[in-house]
Amino acid sequence: MRAGGKDNIMKLATKLGLASALVALPSMGLAQDAVPGVDASSDSIFIFNSLLFLIGGFLVMWMAAGFAMLEAGLVRSKNVAMQLTKNISLFAIAAVMYYLIGYNLMYPLGNWSVGSDETGGYLGAFGVAVLEAVGVGRDAADDYGYASTGSDFYFQLMFCATTASIVSGTLAERIKLWPFLIFTVVLTGLIYPIQASWKWGGGFLDSQYGFLDFAGSTVVHSVGGWAALAGALILGPRIGKYTKEGRTVPIMGSNLPLATLGTFILWLGWFGFNGGSQLAMGTVGDVADVSRIFANTNTAAAGGAIAALILTQVLYKKVDLTMVLNGALAGLVSITAEPLTPTLGGATLIGAVGGVIVVFAVPMLDKLKIDDVVGAIPVHLIAGIWGTIAVVFTNSDATIGGQLISIIIVGAFVFVVSGILWFILKAVMGIRVSEEEEITGLDMAELGMEAYPEFSKS
Amino acid sequence: MRAGGKDNIMKLATKLGLASALVALPSMGLAQDAVPGVDASSDSIFIFNSLLFLIGGFLVMWMAAGFAMLEAGLVRSKNVAMQLTKNISLFAIAAVMYYLIGYNLMYPLGNWSVGSDETGGYLGAFGVAVLEAVGVGRDAADDYGYASTGSDFYFQLMFCATTASIVSGTLAERIKLWPFLIFTVVLTGLIYPIQASWKWGGGFLDSQYGFLDFAGSTVVHSVGGWAALAGALILGPRIGKYTKEGRTVPIMGSNLPLATLGTFILWLGWFGFNGGSQLAMGTVGDVADVSRIFANTNTAAAGGAIAALILTQVLYKKVDLTMVLNGALAGLVSITAEPLTPTLGGATLIGAVGGVIVVFAVPMLDKLKIDDVVGAIPVHLIAGIWGTIAVVFTNSDATIGGQLISIIIVGAFVFVVSGILWFILKAVMGIRVSEEEEITGLDMAELGMEAYPEFSKS
Amino acid sequence: MRAGGKDNIMKLATKLGLASALVALPSMGLAQDAVPGVDASSDSIFIFNSLLFLIGGFLVMWMAAGFAMLEAGLVRSKNVAMQLTKNISLFAIAAVMYYLIGYNLMYPLGNWSVGSDETGGYLGAFGVAVLEAVGVGRDAADDYGYASTGSDFYFQLMFCATTASIVSGTLAERIKLWPFLIFTVVLTGLIYPIQASWKWGGGFLDSQYGFLDFAGSTVVHSVGGWAALAGALILGPRIGKYTKEGRTVPIMGSNLPLATLGTFILWLGWFGFNGGSQLAMGTVGDVADVSRIFANTNTAAAGGAIAALILTQVLYKKVDLTMVLNGALAGLVSITAEPLTPTLGGATLIGAVGGVIVVFAVPMLDKLKIDDVVGAIPVHLIAGIWGTIAVVFTNSDATIGGQLISIIIVGAFVFVVSGILWFILKAVMGIRVSEEEEITGLDMAELGMEAYPEFSKS
Repeated sequence: MRAGGKDNIMKLATKLGLASALVALPSMGLAQDAVPGVDASSDSIFIFNSLLFLIGGFLVMWMAAGFAMLEAGLVRSKNVAMQLTKNISLFAIAAVMYYLIGYNLMYPLGNWSVGSDETGGYLGAFGVAVLEAVGVGRDAADDYGYASTGSDFYFQLMFCATTASIVSGTLAERIKLWPFLIFTVVLTGLIYPIQASWKWGGGFLDSQYGFLDFAGSTVVHSVGGWAALAGALILGPRIGKYTKEGRTVPIMGSNLPLATLGTFILWLGWFGFNGGSQLAMGTVGDVADVSRIFANTNTAAAGGAIAALILTQVLYKKVDLTMVLNGALAGLVSITAEPLTPTLGGATLIGAVGGVIVVFAVPMLDKLKIDDVVGAIPVHLIAGIWGTIAVVFTNSDATIGGQLISIIIVGAFVFVVSGILWFILKAVMGIRVSEEEEITGLDMAELGMEAYPEFSKS
Repeated sequence: MRAGGKDNIMKLATKLGLASALVALPSMGLAQDAVPGVDASSDSIFIFNSLLFLIGGFLVMWMAAGFAMLEAGLVRSKNVAMQLTKNISLFAIAAVMYYLIGYNLMYPLGNWSVGSDETGGYLGAFGVAVLEAVGVGRDAADDYGYASTGSDFYFQLMFCATTASIVSGTLAERIKLWPFLIFTVVLTGLIYPIQASWKWGGGFLDSQYGFLDFAGSTVVHSVGGWAALAGALILGPRIGKYTKEGRTVPIMGSNLPLATLGTFILWLGWFGFNGGSQLAMGTVGDVADVSRIFANTNTAAAGGAIAALILTQVLYKKVDLTMVLNGALAGLVSITAEPLTPTLGGATLIGAVGGVIVVFAVPMLDKLKIDDVVGAIPVHLIAGIWGTIAVVFTNSDATIGGQLISIIIVGAFVFVVSGILWFILKAVMGIRVSEEEEITGLDMAELGMEAYPEFSKS
Repeated sequence: MRAGGKDNIMKLATKLGLASALVALPSMGLAQDAVPGVDASSDSIFIFNSLLFLIGGFLVMWMAAGFAMLEAGLVRSKNVAMQLTKNISLFAIAAVMYYLIGYNLMYPLGNWSVGSDETGGYLGAFGVAVLEAVGVGRDAADDYGYASTGSDFYFQLMFCATTASIVSGTLAERIKLWPFLIFTVVLTGLIYPIQASWKWGGGFLDSQYGFLDFAGSTVVHSVGGWAALAGALILGPRIGKYTKEGRTVPIMGSNLPLATLGTFILWLGWFGFNGGSQLAMGTVGDVADVSRIFANTNTAAAGGAIAALILTQVLYKKVDLTMVLNGALAGLVSITAEPLTPTLGGATLIGAVGGVIVVFAVPMLDKLKIDDVVGAIPVHLIAGIWGTIAVVFTNSDATIGGQLISIIIVGAFVFVVSGILWFILKAVMGIRVSEEEEITGLDMAELGMEAYPEFSKS
């Protein structure tokens, strides 16, 4: 569990407790070596695993910058400072909420508030995250006996923050700052960790439905997408986005180099996102799997970008850069549920389907008058669903039933709870800026500053 | 020593010399393992430690880009190309000066020019840095027998460069290029290494005063801040920043996405800055500590950002993005003197105080008519002092007396020497551009180019 | 071989086959340890080596973003969206082509289509890249028994992509999108891998000429430069770049912060480029060498930047930021052929010569009316040749004859094949946009979008 596919080993460790897990680990290494190699020592395994979390974690942290740049590049210049404010603030909020509530809610280690490991866990444990004492290392509170708690906490936190980053893009250019931040508090403290516990904490989707989601096409990306969708429906489209006659008015992003930079950052960070979700690299087999995941993740992004490149040329006779960027991201989301078992060719195709999805889903959303400023719903929700289903093509442990029911359960939970929350926020404090403020731009109206004060607007 | 808290081990290694250090290391690993684990081999320990320096080093190198983007985003567009020129040039100068003089001045390994390990070291050794022969590895000149000299040199160099980066922001928009670069030569070749040797080279602040500064709240950040403050006082404020009536005129940064990107880069790089300063990850205890440091560093930044977010809303009824950015950075500086011993909650609070400091210190400096273009003095100097004092709250080895006297000694040394140097530069060649050039902007006046030649100025 | 200097070990492994390579590796570690150290286990060595490829690989991947930002910053705003489209598309194409054809063409492991290991290999094997089965690890298809195939594939792919990135900058602002992308298909699928096999695949330049090129001054950088040069000659200069009287009209980049960011990204990525090319870090000697390479790479960049800084001040009385940026990059290219054997001082000088080359070569190309928009030919081709020659100064295994003949053979092959390809593309579909489209800008003409739609043009 955690963000990965090592369910059996982890579950074993959870059940047996820490002491026996310490014993279990070395033999795990042995089992993977048929040839006469010399195992890494148990210390080295611990270090390698922790190091994977640290490297993976800082790469996923970097994705927060990627989202910030992507979104700042795709909104109009009058809303850029606000979009930046939201992105850095949500990352900070996620860090604190995941520490205060999220981590133990997501990983109850069997101490479920509602349910149990045997009958299915539904609501995890409450309490702040506590890291082991300084310099004590493995013999104390280290989780599962296989890596330091601190490295695990750091890594998992970044996934929680990613979920929040997804929401901000869809709702840009019209949502007020503080209601958005309050939503983020609940999303990162409760909504994300609770549903994540169902799979990665060993809860009922994992134990009863055999749900497989290696690094989070559903658990992270679609969750962000559902929360964004609920917000977009309640918030309504931006002024001027759809004419009375039902026509969609394209609203161009103000800074495409920033959007491209953001995409490259996300592409880079995704190696940590998917590769780190192997959760171990202290054996030959594990590091070989991490390597495979890196290669598959890269080629899926390439497949998504190329699909969008060719498809926009064919459909519109002109390549659309923002579609190519979103195509690459959709390729990444698509491979996230299972980056390990596909071949390179399979991964390329899975990613390419993601790119195709984006090209068709963006105008489809516009027909439904759902205004998604950066295309986060096609990229993270729809491609996320696709990726979760695609697991069955390459991993025989997955069942189409288990995948679909899990997608539905997670989706219904997140969509309904988010919707209720958005409604409450709307009723209590209002979630949308005034028409005048929206036309002026959120930067001057809410922040009193401009992102580019010297570049005159055309 | 070096940039970290491993004073005893390091000191031991220095005194015993290389051969015995080789023997000492494995047992160090053993001491930390009470459970029946298998130690990493001594080769693996060496490799892990060196790898930490390499990863930490490239992350800190990346901070140079962060400072460049932060500063380029916070100056007016007419001075952006100059700010970029200063940033890339100072990084290159730091690399060469640290190689030519700094490294051995900072780490004399007992060969003090003035003083000794026993009575207190005051001035290190002179000579260029020499790395061990190719492929020879541990059996030759490897420092302390625990990591490759090259990795250590690479890592420590980046801290020296960071110090120089801090200065450029404060003095932006009015200082001439070449005097600034000459100052950088002296700062990176002499001022930084000499004072750093007092603590991290095992000099008198370390041996006589028990000064603790894990990763450099004082040794790096406040040093940059003091040098910047001396320069700001001698240089004077920008034209138009303060009216004759004593009012402060806000001068907005030209590109807030760049400033935000710079902040995210610095946030990312800081994991290397603080985590790498553990100086070892070849044992279970060390990697667990590095992990804890990563987690604490992140949450301190979050605390600083959230404090500034809430405080600017409360005080000014509007969130101020640049304050949030500087709040995050102040949180990072605050946790840098002791990122290991605080709990997650403690680290969040230490960082939050940093954020509060920034919100109050920025207008306070303006009242004093000290013109600090990017807020580097509040962030690096004042929060750096706070962080250095805060060590006593969580680390019982620190004394308030030892911390305060060290802050004062380092501050006095850097401020006085920097001040003298700025005066000499002012007398000899002038340090400020002419009034006309300042109004025109340094880009056209000094470089003859524009950063954004096509974007008309409003 | 591969991208590095470990020719003998690799060749041995290739010839003996995988099984015996497994046995050979541990003794390799032993040979490097004269002191009584304890070797890392064979598993640890495998993991460390794979990890080097993964870290090195993601750093080199990041260089794709660096090229994109550098080029987007150095073209006029009317061509920025197109430049971004080319950069992300070429990276995606490289990923797929290298998988479909390139990898096995470059590393035939003795199965040459033309030639043999003994008489000299000329054309590698055809077939898609296949990674080993999940979780199997070392005992199956792992290459050379020393690192996972996936990590190696991932790492080497990034070098292929880098080559393509170099071409796009030179030909910016006038080449059509699709011919450029078709050229990229051939460059990354055939041209790059074939010539790279001659050296890094153990082909005739390696076996017959003793050619040394550690990380690719020739194999990567000059190859990109030759392909770009052929394109620039056939494409011709941009409208307005050279007057009828033969005067060069400076065309300024539209966004120098982006160009500077790109340079910093490339500088950072280069640690992976050169450091990863050690191809191993599982022994004390290897990690010490990787460390040395990091330090030398950094100081060479610094040398190049400082040389350009001083030289533009002396020659033109004004520092030229874009020259400083290109100076740093030229320093990096210069050290790439041999980043290990020079001392820190030697590396600084080698890089400084690269910086000098740039300052003189840029106006020289203009005199020849070769319009290289971003200076890629001076940086990657001319400094690449310099770096390849400079190997003989510090590595006694290199001969001036072997280096020169290899430079010429690779250059002739790439220049001629690229030239033919550009001619065919010109004849079949045209490679240059119409005069009207060029004046309008490629963004509106070819893509129908603007990179900065709100910033009015001055």
